Amino acid sequence: MEVSTLASALLAEDTGALLDRALEQWTAILGPYHVMVDERSRTAAETATFATSQRVPAILRPGCREEVQECIRIANRFRVSLYPVSSGKNWGYGSRVPVADASVLIDLSRMNRIVDFNEKLAYVTVEPGVTQRQLFEFLGTHQSRLWMDATGSSPECSLIGNVVERGFGHTPYGDHFAQVCGFEVVLPTGTLMQTGFCRFPAAQAGPVYRWGAGPTLEGLFSQSNLGIVTRMTIWLMPAPEHFEAFFFQCNRADQLAGLIEALRPLRMQGILRSTVHIANDYKVLAGIQQYPWQETGGQTPLRPELMAQLRSRLKFGAWSGSGGLYGTRGQVAEARRAIRKALKGKVDRLQFLDDRKLAFASRFAKLYQLLTGWDLSKVIELARPIYGLMKGVPTEQPLASTYWRKKSVPPTSMDPDRDGCGLLWLAPVAPTEGHHVELIAKIANDILLEYGFEPSISMTLITERAVACVISICYDRREAGQDDQAMACYHRLRQAMTDRGYYSYRLGIQAMSEMSGPDGYADLVRAIKNAVDPNGVLAPGRYQPGVSVPSQTTATPIAKA
Amino acid sequence: MEVSTLASALLAEDTGALLDRALEQWTAILGPYHVMVDERSRTAAETATFATSQRVPAILRPGCREEVQECIRIANRFRVSLYPVSSGKNWGYGSRVPVADASVLIDLSRMNRIVDFNEKLAYVTVEPGVTQRQLFEFLGTHQSRLWMDATGSSPECSLIGNVVERGFGHTPYGDHFAQVCGFEVVLPTGTLMQTGFCRFPAAQAGPVYRWGAGPTLEGLFSQSNLGIVTRMTIWLMPAPEHFEAFFFQCNRADQLAGLIEALRPLRMQGILRSTVHIANDYKVLAGIQQYPWQETGGQTPLRPELMAQLRSRLKFGAWSGSGGLYGTRGQVAEARRAIRKALKGKVDRLQFLDDRKLAFASRFAKLYQLLTGWDLSKVIELARPIYGLMKGVPTEQPLASTYWRKKSVPPTSMDPDRDGCGLLWLAPVAPTEGHHVELIAKIANDILLEYGFEPSISMTLITERAVACVISICYDRREAGQDDQAMACYHRLRQAMTDRGYYSYRLGIQAMSEMSGPDGYADLVRAIKNAVDPNGVLAPGRYQPGVSVPSQTTATPIAKA
Repeated sequence: MEVSTLASALLAEDTGALLDRALEQWTAILGPYHVMVDERSRTAAETATFATSQRVPAILRPGCREEVQECIRIANRFRVSLYPVSSGKNWGYGSRVPVADASVLIDLSRMNRIVDFNEKLAYVTVEPGVTQRQLFEFLGTHQSRLWMDATGSSPECSLIGNVVERGFGHTPYGDHFAQVCGFEVVLPTGTLMQTGFCRFPAAQAGPVYRWGAGPTLEGLFSQSNLGIVTRMTIWLMPAPEHFEAFFFQCNRADQLAGLIEALRPLRMQGILRSTVHIANDYKVLAGIQQYPWQETGGQTPLRPELMAQLRSRLKFGAWSGSGGLYGTRGQVAEARRAIRKALKGKVDRLQFLDDRKLAFASRFAKLYQLLTGWDLSKVIELARPIYGLMKGVPTEQPLASTYWRKKSVPPTSMDPDRDGCGLLWLAPVAPTEGHHVELIAKIANDILLEYGFEPSISMTLITERAVACVISICYDRREAGQDDQAMACYHRLRQAMTDRGYYSYRLGIQAMSEMSGPDGYADLVRAIKNAVDPNGVLAPGRYQPGVSVPSQTTATPIAKA
Repeated sequence: MEVSTLASALLAEDTGALLDRALEQWTAILGPYHVMVDERSRTAAETATFATSQRVPAILRPGCREEVQECIRIANRFRVSLYPVSSGKNWGYGSRVPVADASVLIDLSRMNRIVDFNEKLAYVTVEPGVTQRQLFEFLGTHQSRLWMDATGSSPECSLIGNVVERGFGHTPYGDHFAQVCGFEVVLPTGTLMQTGFCRFPAAQAGPVYRWGAGPTLEGLFSQSNLGIVTRMTIWLMPAPEHFEAFFFQCNRADQLAGLIEALRPLRMQGILRSTVHIANDYKVLAGIQQYPWQETGGQTPLRPELMAQLRSRLKFGAWSGSGGLYGTRGQVAEARRAIRKALKGKVDRLQFLDDRKLAFASRFAKLYQLLTGWDLSKVIELARPIYGLMKGVPTEQPLASTYWRKKSVPPTSMDPDRDGCGLLWLAPVAPTEGHHVELIAKIANDILLEYGFEPSISMTLITERAVACVISICYDRREAGQDDQAMACYHRLRQAMTDRGYYSYRLGIQAMSEMSGPDGYADLVRAIKNAVDPNGVLAPGRYQPGVSVPSQTTATPIAKA
């Protein structure tokens, strides 16, 4: 295509012709094998765990940052939107599906090198394709004494993907975005940049000190469409001398507020250094089994009355929680005493578990069952993945719960997108105070049951002062009408939370256009976006305040020249 | 002035006429009392602890954010540069002096309200004029169980000023920029914005969760010229059940590397949760007394041989350090054991001190002296401010050391700018490894002595992985030639550090133009600056990479229309 032809295509907004030209150039750079346009790949990329209508014309799979730079330069040339995903496992928030229609996916999973590792200073530098499993195995291979922090999703999740979405995990390094530095970023124009001290030649403190000198820019590249992160340093925690987990449960739902009030001082005082996770009965049940179709006679939702029966039969509480204790033996013992004291009268059960006890219990489970009739192995099977997460061991276990409303068992190789698992997540944040979490739980309970879904709730004491609540709307996408019903429920829930001042720490692709009205923050983000992405090619609409990208139309959002 | 007159003045770059018009409008807004143009005020504002040539035409003192907004709108109208300071006590880095010549100072010290306080969730929301002393007294008045983190400067320092410069303190909340959220910012065009959840109406988690939803922007307003922070939430730590300080010393300089290697695992494992400060003999001596003019016969610098004699006479080491232990009694006892074990053979002296011991020692100091001949009260007098800092008690003690090379004693009301105290600080950051800190100390020692200054060095284990070294070039500005000599030493030192890859976490106004060559980071910051400050009126040159603002000329840097 001659320059003049390109100009007239741009002028005529002949997006088809522009896309074709872009595909030609991408193919020249990446080779045909890494430019996927076949229907199967495209359909997979267009599928999330809820209804979407965005079409994905192609998927690019660059192998290095230089190819990422070239890909985005070509996108600029032909005004084609690019939407980056690391592993694309952003389940519950939109999976791989772009926010705007007609965006070409740029899939970074081939860039999976661990480019630096330092045992003494406890960090790794990774590319976006590096998964939780990969880092876990790498640490094992190197007989490292370091623990990673794993998020309770799949082992195949990208580490960087989770960090830039500001996900969280289960150890003292659980607030993922707080434990990283030294981003390498490809800007929307193709320029490469580095944050912190890493931008200076041969900087010694690049991987160990976050702020650098001058404005600190990491925040611009989390939950945004301002750049593609191609490298990042992630800090790891040294394995403590001793680790112990604690598990607790409350039999009554109304014990939640008191529990939160009891836990806050422990978290604030540094007696609990890690995130503490609390789940309601629905959440726990979905971790144990699928929907009880038999007991309910096929009716949904699972009513609280039946839930109460299941609870007492399966021996779990209205609220169940867990946390980890990390330190010297003496420190852990001290923390154990403090927790016992603080939770006395607040919980109905409190148990501590360490490696020794776990091994012992596993060995004697059969004997124990003979003696007591209680199948301990079942409990161990449930506890082990949670216990492991607190030691930074990734697990596939939580993924199974996305099959909750399915009538067949989860397959060996789980893929919620492919299998029509319905999942919408809303994640409001509140101060760690009893009345806040109580109110959030009540709102979620009422609305989800009203819409015919089980109110599955987890509450995570993510920092010293804040709780992140994750509310799951879990359904079967193959059931007629359920997609619409779930989305209506989501929007109603979101509005109810917003009305009370509870905003989400993370948004699904369907909610990003509603981020906020016009304000100074929105104006500034827009000004920065215009400055760094004059053609608006990078992930239009992604966490872009005040920009409405209709997902229900086929209108092309490709920016004009 | 008519619009046409304004236009022609702008066109003619008649900066005098523009400034006069701006002053008229500022006076109309703030009243004449808060627009200072008298020579005494201007001279004071033009004076730092090293040589500067920037002229300050006026000082504005707005009383609220609306006045800040109006001030900057007027600055835009007449293309006059504005340079914000909170308390202006940025000693060693430029005090109140603007980076660019002919900038009008906007002094925020009148905005000194504590606008929110929450004992349970442990935070305050403050304006830029709130000082360390003010918050400390506020907590006392409210019988709060919360501790602030104080930086070892003056009690009159602004809290926000220190945070945005990314200063550090002595408690587990010592990395100041990591313990804040919810910035309210006046952008260079006068727009008001808020970061994090605070931007949403009635957000509950605004003061407790930092990241909000969408891009995180706090970093843009630290070490930058992109906005004026008019409000901020600062997290406070709950007073621990028990506090204990530890003090250690090494008699030989070559013990430093081993000491650092021993401390790193303690910091990394969370046994030490706070910053640990280590000072060399020169630094300690400057904390005890002024330059020993008598012993040296008036000669400078103080040679290592004499330093060694003074050390043994005054009973301090080549390296002295301190840190705090915070927690339950059991946790502190456990940490004490771990520290004893780790420092065994690494230090020549290790002492623990708590409130009880300190009170006891104070009471029996006289008796002790009678019995042993050793004046314990002197030791207590020295230890008390450091001990206090670890509990968040601000102190004026470190300020006295800026009078090190003076021949008269520090006045009751100290003011290093006014009194011609010479001070230049360089603060390179390194990974917490023995060989790095050893090399930094050697470079500093060699260069400072060569230039005739005492190498006064502190090393702070500011995070789990990084050490911030503060090297002081301390001199008497009233001595002829010393300003030039000190600045030459500074640039030589800075170059030597940079050559080895040790970059500073914070820069003085004289060094900001040298921040970096052209790179992606610099381009991005420049693009953002242009987008948010089209007239370039806000603090031109401040932490602005790649922009050279000569400070030795009288050229006006006021941006053109």
